[in-house]
Amino acid sequence: MTQQNQRPGAGLAPFFQASGIAVIGASDEITKIGGRPVHMLIKHGYRGAVYPINPKGGTIQGLPAYTSVKDTPTSPELAILAVPAAATPAALRDCAARGVKAAIVLSAGFTEAGPQGAALQTELVAIAREHGMRVLGPNCLGTVNVAERLIGSFSIALEENMPPVGHVGIVSQSGNVGSHTMQSVARRGMGVSRFIATGNEADVDAADGIAALAEDPDTRIILCCMETCRNAGKLIDALRLARGKGKPVIILKIGSTEKGQAAAASHTGALTGSDAVIDAVFRRHGVLRVRSVEALIDIGHAASLLMPDRLPASDAVTLVAASGGFGIMMADAMSEAGLALPALAPDTQRRILEAVPTASTGNPVDASAQMSSRPDILLKMLTALLDDPSASSLALFMSLSLYNTRLRGIYLEALAQVRASHPDRLLMVISQGPADAVEQINALGILVFSSIDAAATGLSGLVKLGKLRAAAYADTALPAAEPVDPAVFRNEFHAKQALGNAGIDVPREIIARSADDAVRAAEAIGYPVVLKIASEDVAHKTEAGGVLLNVTDADAVRHGHARILANVARHAPGARIDGILVAPMVAGGTELIAGVSQDPVFGPIVMVGMGGIYAEVLKDVAVQAAPVTEDEAAEMIRSLKMFAILDGARGQPKADIAAAARSVARLSAFAYRHRDDVSEIDMNPILVRPQGQGVVVLDALMIPRAAPAH
Amino acid sequence: MTQQNQRPGAGLAPFFQASGIAVIGASDEITKIGGRPVHMLIKHGYRGAVYPINPKGGTIQGLPAYTSVKDTPTSPELAILAVPAAATPAALRDCAARGVKAAIVLSAGFTEAGPQGAALQTELVAIAREHGMRVLGPNCLGTVNVAERLIGSFSIALEENMPPVGHVGIVSQSGNVGSHTMQSVARRGMGVSRFIATGNEADVDAADGIAALAEDPDTRIILCCMETCRNAGKLIDALRLARGKGKPVIILKIGSTEKGQAAAASHTGALTGSDAVIDAVFRRHGVLRVRSVEALIDIGHAASLLMPDRLPASDAVTLVAASGGFGIMMADAMSEAGLALPALAPDTQRRILEAVPTASTGNPVDASAQMSSRPDILLKMLTALLDDPSASSLALFMSLSLYNTRLRGIYLEALAQVRASHPDRLLMVISQGPADAVEQINALGILVFSSIDAAATGLSGLVKLGKLRAAAYADTALPAAEPVDPAVFRNEFHAKQALGNAGIDVPREIIARSADDAVRAAEAIGYPVVLKIASEDVAHKTEAGGVLLNVTDADAVRHGHARILANVARHAPGARIDGILVAPMVAGGTELIAGVSQDPVFGPIVMVGMGGIYAEVLKDVAVQAAPVTEDEAAEMIRSLKMFAILDGARGQPKADIAAAARSVARLSAFAYRHRDDVSEIDMNPILVRPQGQGVVVLDALMIPRAAPAH
Repeated sequence: MTQQNQRPGAGLAPFFQASGIAVIGASDEITKIGGRPVHMLIKHGYRGAVYPINPKGGTIQGLPAYTSVKDTPTSPELAILAVPAAATPAALRDCAARGVKAAIVLSAGFTEAGPQGAALQTELVAIAREHGMRVLGPNCLGTVNVAERLIGSFSIALEENMPPVGHVGIVSQSGNVGSHTMQSVARRGMGVSRFIATGNEADVDAADGIAALAEDPDTRIILCCMETCRNAGKLIDALRLARGKGKPVIILKIGSTEKGQAAAASHTGALTGSDAVIDAVFRRHGVLRVRSVEALIDIGHAASLLMPDRLPASDAVTLVAASGGFGIMMADAMSEAGLALPALAPDTQRRILEAVPTASTGNPVDASAQMSSRPDILLKMLTALLDDPSASSLALFMSLSLYNTRLRGIYLEALAQVRASHPDRLLMVISQGPADAVEQINALGILVFSSIDAAATGLSGLVKLGKLRAAAYADTALPAAEPVDPAVFRNEFHAKQALGNAGIDVPREIIARSADDAVRAAEAIGYPVVLKIASEDVAHKTEAGGVLLNVTDADAVRHGHARILANVARHAPGARIDGILVAPMVAGGTELIAGVSQDPVFGPIVMVGMGGIYAEVLKDVAVQAAPVTEDEAAEMIRSLKMFAILDGARGQPKADIAAAARSVARLSAFAYRHRDDVSEIDMNPILVRPQGQGVVVLDALMIPRAAPAH
Repeated sequence: MTQQNQRPGAGLAPFFQASGIAVIGASDEITKIGGRPVHMLIKHGYRGAVYPINPKGGTIQGLPAYTSVKDTPTSPELAILAVPAAATPAALRDCAARGVKAAIVLSAGFTEAGPQGAALQTELVAIAREHGMRVLGPNCLGTVNVAERLIGSFSIALEENMPPVGHVGIVSQSGNVGSHTMQSVARRGMGVSRFIATGNEADVDAADGIAALAEDPDTRIILCCMETCRNAGKLIDALRLARGKGKPVIILKIGSTEKGQAAAASHTGALTGSDAVIDAVFRRHGVLRVRSVEALIDIGHAASLLMPDRLPASDAVTLVAASGGFGIMMADAMSEAGLALPALAPDTQRRILEAVPTASTGNPVDASAQMSSRPDILLKMLTALLDDPSASSLALFMSLSLYNTRLRGIYLEALAQVRASHPDRLLMVISQGPADAVEQINALGILVFSSIDAAATGLSGLVKLGKLRAAAYADTALPAAEPVDPAVFRNEFHAKQALGNAGIDVPREIIARSADDAVRAAEAIGYPVVLKIASEDVAHKTEAGGVLLNVTDADAVRHGHARILANVARHAPGARIDGILVAPMVAGGTELIAGVSQDPVFGPIVMVGMGGIYAEVLKDVAVQAAPVTEDEAAEMIRSLKMFAILDGARGQPKADIAAAARSVARLSAFAYRHRDDVSEIDMNPILVRPQGQGVVVLDALMIPRAAPAH
């Protein structure tokens, strides 16, 4: 969070639009990394100047070659570097001297290859900064502007054909994954606007790519393959920009099973995996995250057919199949994907039975094989379903019917007619079939998924995308605060006092320095009380005999005071004792835990989870980058697997979720404002009492940030 | 469990091999249900006699038609009935009179259509039983024997082409789903042996189909689509037969989100969904259960390529891709599917680097695009990986390379060579590409999956299939027992006594009829004790003030005895009191719950789960049909999501799993032997103490079976 954020996407234009391109390390051999870009620029008809650069000069692939970029007739706006890593800094300096604005370093051998390569990469960045040049890569697959035939890449995917021109923009860190995505998009008949693969991200990163595509008028939807986020602020700015422009961003985040930070000092740290943080931040900023290349392509394809304004308005879907079995499978998959299957209106049911008397009129509709026996029957059935007021989307299972000539005719005729009569409804079919039949259906603006699972994943993704686009996220501007009193790191009393000052409900507690003090404190607080040792040297208070519950009168306080001191003296001789903490005896309610840890990229992360060992073993927690609003905190609590326990399961009273959410939001604000001196916080347990009765934080722990190394 | 089990598959031969077939209700129109079978029998070249039966006589589709089945020149072994439901009983009687051995009733309008139809269906069964005839359907898609061109079906999938002849047998209840499966199998280039769709299952059911295919020498693998199991014993017998013949059974069970028996009287009943029971029974009897048609086809295809003896021997897989990103995605998907990714041997790593110096030699291997630049490099890489001793399977990610002419050549050459040099290794590629290229690879005995997810699901399915085939299950023969003493249903004391007599560890408890009695009991048991009201009229003992914990001496017992009786008198006036239960005060350990409920198909089901409200809300339970062995019970306990808590999570001592498993096994045996008089049992909680210290059942409840209605 402390990185300085340049505006994402700034200075990226020449990667996509350049009047001339120099290929440094150009080769006659078209399978070589320095040969393929030249070959493809010529083959696919790039209109600007192409300057092959090679110390040998002569001609390369029929073009005059230059021994140095300094000798080109005009100053190329873009350079493609395909020379060995060690030769790259010198080549980049030459480019800078020639006025090149942007350079794509295709060559490998940098950070990914060890310390020597890393030093070379650092040198590249220094040269770029010095000359105000943007560098893409190194170790990257470069850029493509499909309409302009600008190919700053050696992707083998472009060796034979270019993808069609269109509206899908692709950003990838991995060249291979990006290239696969571009090819798959094209194979699905979608057009591509621009492609950028960022490789090692010495300078230009995925956030730049997203921002550049957000600002590209030809791009309507952005597909992104991401392995690592290196700069959270910049990524968030780019996502904000894309959302502002109304362009959906779908990200395949690679590497979802990363290990959590197992070595963290607090419970919170151990329970917060960085993958969950990515999930939360993506959701907050309108990104649809997918789990496979297929889902990326499927949902990207569907969204591009539905853009700009036919994304589903609700999660309700009507299902129809010629078979009860497939209907049940669709219903199972759609329900599991979180979609709703509303009942059909009585009038719809009547019309279904008019079309097919033996149909079952639930949702899914089992329309029997009768449905497809004649085009008019199918038309009647589909029209009745599309007229139904309750469902926003209609999914039709077509099995392998498109392979049957007769059925293909019946289905295509009926689909064309209902598309014309219901142009605004989201209509999808689940079908395998010959490519030309699938294309015909797509051309009607009807989605085609090849399996029930793909359809369920796809529709649920589209619904999420619709919701994510609608919900705007407003940053809470929170200035950094003065450092906290170092005492907060010493014991729970001071930690809770600081949290109390931040507006979080903590019990009224008093540190007693003597038995008399303790009795006075107990009387001020009211019996029964709890007595606890207050010492920075006693981490496990209960094990040390340092806790007494349910102390009911002055005598018991005196005895307890002495007993705790004796226990601790025996258990932890020499421990520094701050006193005995006197606290009210609080019971009843459900336990939550909440806390803060530091993510190396996203900064302070707030976590809330169910309390107790069962919940801990299951890691039943929700996370989000701090600060969170009370609404976000409530949403986090509601997302817990065991939320039912707070929500009145097994006849318990409903818990005070609003108060719990308030505490979590305030904790997150506190952590955010103190991010420079507080590293981790645990509030464990938080007792959440029945609705209207609030919460109370029974124990708390704060861990300071380590002093900076220099 | 009480249904009488005929031998599954008995008398099914004529459905697949018949010297002559009568089609009752035959039609000239080939799209009609009575026209299509005649058409297809002729078109595809069935060699036996085909007798169209139609009251009008004349010729049908060029064949002489008969006005009655009684007039056919020879007695057809098989009849296909395509007359209206109401006319079916008479037609079936005619068939019986003519000596027909098996009848397929294609017509609908029976049980699925309401009470009238149900009566007709009952009539069909009666006729069949009377004449020793087998009836398939009604409302079914019939049978196919591909090699013999016997088509007892109106499946539109066969209208244009027959599937190739082969070794995959298909059993389906739903005609549509079965037909889709047959077509998909054929589209994947697999051959089909036999197909049977059982529809309403008036007589022949899926178990018969599985058994018939198990005994068919042409069938090597059985794919099954099942909606409902109607006869558990028969299904289990069929599965046992298939396992005995070494034929893998893969079942797509449709309808996995069925609601549990929410209205059950005990906790166990509420926690036990019948879908989980199906899961457990399938696993026990060697079935691989899949969740989608695609997985059924994918794994069926793969298994058929690997049969009879190349199913993977272990869950270890080596992954290789030309890209780090795809490598990570493969690793994520494979790990999530439960597969292991062992590290490569040092020698393998050395050889990888010899082939591609920039490769990363972990697992997944990132072999970089270099790998596919020349056939000899790819061959070197793959040979090194296949020589590695640790992994049983190798998965190669090929992206879209098969679409590139040059790369296609390189990959196919190398794959053919390593197949020849390593004929026994399981080799799979993840690739999309032209159908002929995919077929070429399949022809090498190399599996092709179209996505990473499909490959992970597929390989994990194959590994499970290998393990399931290996593990044989031996029934425990347990005779039914004498009815239990009805007192066990009255209160926890008697319930626990009965369980104690069955070898389950219950505390030593005494019912005291007076205060003196109670003191004597407490002294015999040893202090501290627990006092509890024993009354069949007090269900919620704690709420009624009927429980006192930690009673430490004689005086306290006397006082407690009086107090409980007073509380109960106030709370539940008129309650019948059996006395006061005196029990030892037991604490420490982890709580499990276990119990028994009745499944309408599978009989007594034993359940074990984690105790406590969190576990209950999450339904963290495992189930199996009773009786279970101690090994099975231990496996059930280990399968719990929160098993870590019993296994020493967070520094707790490991719990006595063996003792817990013994209790569950004994509970299951008790429930099985008393299945005729005991309906449900709860043991809740069971305190599982540290290893070697056993378990103790703290509370128990038994519910009798309702008296039979007549």
